[in-house]
Amino acid sequence: MPDKSNGWTVTVKLPKPSLDDNRADADRLRTALKSALNAEDLDIDIPLLKTLPSRLRKCSYQVRCLCFNDYGRWRLIGIKASADQTPFLGIAVDLGTTRVVLRLTDLDTGEKMAEQAFDNPQTAIGPDILERIHYADKAGGLEELNRLIIDGFQTHIEKLCGEAGGCAEDIYLMAVAGNTSMAHLFMGLAPGGIIREPYIPVVNRPDLIPAASLNLKLHQDAGIFVFPNVGSYFGGDLISGILYSGLSESEKISMLVDVGTNAEVVLGNRDWLVVCAGAAGPALEGGASKIGMTAGPGVIDQVMIDPETRRFNLHTIDDQPPKGICGSGMIDLVAQLFLAGLLDIRGRLVPEAAPERIYETNDERRLVVADEEASATGKALTLGQADFDSLIRSKAAMYTILETITSYVGITFNDLSRFYVAGTFGSFIRPRSAITIGMIPDLPEATFQSLGNSSLGGASRLLGARTAMDQIERIYQNITYIELNVNQAFMNRFSAAKFLPHTEAAHFPSVKSPHF
Amino acid sequence: MPDKSNGWTVTVKLPKPSLDDNRADADRLRTALKSALNAEDLDIDIPLLKTLPSRLRKCSYQVRCLCFNDYGRWRLIGIKASADQTPFLGIAVDLGTTRVVLRLTDLDTGEKMAEQAFDNPQTAIGPDILERIHYADKAGGLEELNRLIIDGFQTHIEKLCGEAGGCAEDIYLMAVAGNTSMAHLFMGLAPGGIIREPYIPVVNRPDLIPAASLNLKLHQDAGIFVFPNVGSYFGGDLISGILYSGLSESEKISMLVDVGTNAEVVLGNRDWLVVCAGAAGPALEGGASKIGMTAGPGVIDQVMIDPETRRFNLHTIDDQPPKGICGSGMIDLVAQLFLAGLLDIRGRLVPEAAPERIYETNDERRLVVADEEASATGKALTLGQADFDSLIRSKAAMYTILETITSYVGITFNDLSRFYVAGTFGSFIRPRSAITIGMIPDLPEATFQSLGNSSLGGASRLLGARTAMDQIERIYQNITYIELNVNQAFMNRFSAAKFLPHTEAAHFPSVKSPHF
Repeated sequence: MPDKSNGWTVTVKLPKPSLDDNRADADRLRTALKSALNAEDLDIDIPLLKTLPSRLRKCSYQVRCLCFNDYGRWRLIGIKASADQTPFLGIAVDLGTTRVVLRLTDLDTGEKMAEQAFDNPQTAIGPDILERIHYADKAGGLEELNRLIIDGFQTHIEKLCGEAGGCAEDIYLMAVAGNTSMAHLFMGLAPGGIIREPYIPVVNRPDLIPAASLNLKLHQDAGIFVFPNVGSYFGGDLISGILYSGLSESEKISMLVDVGTNAEVVLGNRDWLVVCAGAAGPALEGGASKIGMTAGPGVIDQVMIDPETRRFNLHTIDDQPPKGICGSGMIDLVAQLFLAGLLDIRGRLVPEAAPERIYETNDERRLVVADEEASATGKALTLGQADFDSLIRSKAAMYTILETITSYVGITFNDLSRFYVAGTFGSFIRPRSAITIGMIPDLPEATFQSLGNSSLGGASRLLGARTAMDQIERIYQNITYIELNVNQAFMNRFSAAKFLPHTEAAHFPSVKSPHF
Repeated sequence: MPDKSNGWTVTVKLPKPSLDDNRADADRLRTALKSALNAEDLDIDIPLLKTLPSRLRKCSYQVRCLCFNDYGRWRLIGIKASADQTPFLGIAVDLGTTRVVLRLTDLDTGEKMAEQAFDNPQTAIGPDILERIHYADKAGGLEELNRLIIDGFQTHIEKLCGEAGGCAEDIYLMAVAGNTSMAHLFMGLAPGGIIREPYIPVVNRPDLIPAASLNLKLHQDAGIFVFPNVGSYFGGDLISGILYSGLSESEKISMLVDVGTNAEVVLGNRDWLVVCAGAAGPALEGGASKIGMTAGPGVIDQVMIDPETRRFNLHTIDDQPPKGICGSGMIDLVAQLFLAGLLDIRGRLVPEAAPERIYETNDERRLVVADEEASATGKALTLGQADFDSLIRSKAAMYTILETITSYVGITFNDLSRFYVAGTFGSFIRPRSAITIGMIPDLPEATFQSLGNSSLGGASRLLGARTAMDQIERIYQNITYIELNVNQAFMNRFSAAKFLPHTEAAHFPSVKSPHF
């Protein structure tokens, strides 16, 4: 009888052996699980077989089993007596280049139990993924990088489990979503081919990996699921994000954008998916200017400028005196400067609109965001014309990518039922501001949905729902990766997008500026 | 393009990566192998993936791969550069309760390279499998038994490989055929259920097992194939024997008998297979009488008695003075005694036919097989009436089993196109003598074929032929195991078979004795 629950665990009551039913223990269990899971077959490995006879007999053939659908091939991972109420535990992982987030999950219910994040220890070798990939080419380099991340996992999994009153041996399943390079380093696979023409990963869709073969000390039978990547530039973190968004389950067309130094874009529905990735530039993450920084206490994340008085109202994280500005703050600032007439449609500072804030140096015009009295540093926080130019190039690149992929499939932005913004950074962006600067299309605000850490969200969903695996497989099968050719058409679009919000005002009917 | 060779290795030349073909290394190799093997999918595990990129690049994408079809699921086990001429090595194993035979095999050609046998080290715990199974129930008992056999394997594999100029790390594949209990002890699985009602093995059809998970130090990616068993009493050694005989490939009906303390019988063709097992008694293996022993120097293995002079002509192994008699010698002896009129149709000694050889003690009549002068022991070798009774019960049990299974499927012995005799012991039996005593049916001598060590033969065939796996799967799927019910019909048949050759002389038209 098919099991109606949605998780990876299933409880079965086996017919007891008799002379008329003397199937092997493995067959008895397999048959019951196949029927409960509607599975064609189910693998049971030797270590589990070793404990099977005594377990079955001790619990009168009533067992709760943890199974996993490894791309259509079911595997038994764990087995407990039905009466045993201790949960099977799993860990969802967002494996970032900079930061790793672990979420402890009850595999019976899919419920989140605890969460922990740690800095990727590979940063000691190189903060940038490229440095690490080059380091991996050296003798022993890959092994060292792999050991760093595996040790980091082991340490923090033990901490996380300890805090929840368990131990690492209680972990049966781990779902890891990361970009292609990080996934390779985690699996101990050489990442060199990923960055060199013709851009070849070692593997796209790894099977479930025994934890022991990655030197992770979890439950002895634990399996590690690594989200598949589609080639070198579209990683498992994005597949996980698509899963989390639900985009691939709807008949309506939606778009998903992971905003960052690289912009990854997904367009599609349950029948088709087109994806591309392109460089948008570091300005969007606040990394370009001297005062740009990632979100943290004292960092400006929202800006309001009164269009009448042109007074700045800066919001900082934790309401501390400002010490810098993050990406979402920068987008807000540019949008507000534009609406208040301090930036023109070319993104140039307009001194006459706010002579008290805009001044000239030998090199360029600069804007005082916060003066030395308001600033936390004792020095005025200022941005130069070059900083604004950089942000505008980035937003133009982003919009051009969105336009290109949309026109590639022959639809317009108005055909989108949802526009998902993924990534932690993305969750801070206010759509209204992003529309105002022409970074994202001018759609009703309700169309936009921020997903937060969609990579972690998707990994978490996989641990909680048996159906997620079919969805992942469908996503993987349906994806068409398109190379963004930087040809004349692309450059024409890019040039047109380097205005605020755009040369074609008709594209942004909702944006009303003093210049229009 | 499908590979036309028949073995488990396949050579492929991969298209080199380019911007137009930037598949992952794993996908590139997988696609080529799937096409060459006509496989639906192919698994490549993490340890192999780790070495894949550098290997592929070093050998310009021309590789020779060892793959294995694990019940329809293909696995990559080994990879070498095409130019590398060193063979992939494998070991075929007859895993006997008493003796283990290893055959080193070149997996490219299927050719036998060397062979070695060793006594099963578990004999130290108990020569009998039952003792070992009881020992396995004790704390640590199973682990000790498992360690003994695994250590025995490791030692003798290293020796065998060393003699052939290689080492254990050159072994990529091992095919193990043994009875259900021995297979369980080898895999470290509790055998207790096999001998206790309702007779439940832990597993019938194990998947390919990583050598490392059995603590065997072979090549790091080596796989161990353990032949499937059909329940507790029909082991992988017999499946291997069926494979070796070719019985399951023919449209004609044949029978295969493994003669021993247990008689295992197979009846069928390529469409169906019926099997049963029953106790025939130790007499057939020469184990019942005081002078009974297994084959060895000085053991009587053939007997001729001149029907006129009633002179005995004893043949011993290595032509040494006789010290005992083995099973095949015993069958010969009884047949010759019967034909010479020294045994009557009830199997009773006839003193008047040879007063110089047959004498009476207080308990019974006895026959002098070799007098004290001829004997190697200095004492006369004699057999009592009870020894003959025991042999006749055994042969009657054997014939009854053959009759029962034949009538179960509604055919007669005359429908058999082949009658295979399996097992080392079976290969010494002369069909003519076995027919004469009514142990096997009265068929033309050309019908009989001795297979020798069919268990080793089948394991060896598997290592040499890719198609063998499909055959094994078909054998496993087609088999119907029938329980021999010792009911009235069986007992009636048994009673009728306790004569020489049978109460129904018409069943044995070719046997002409003085009594007929």
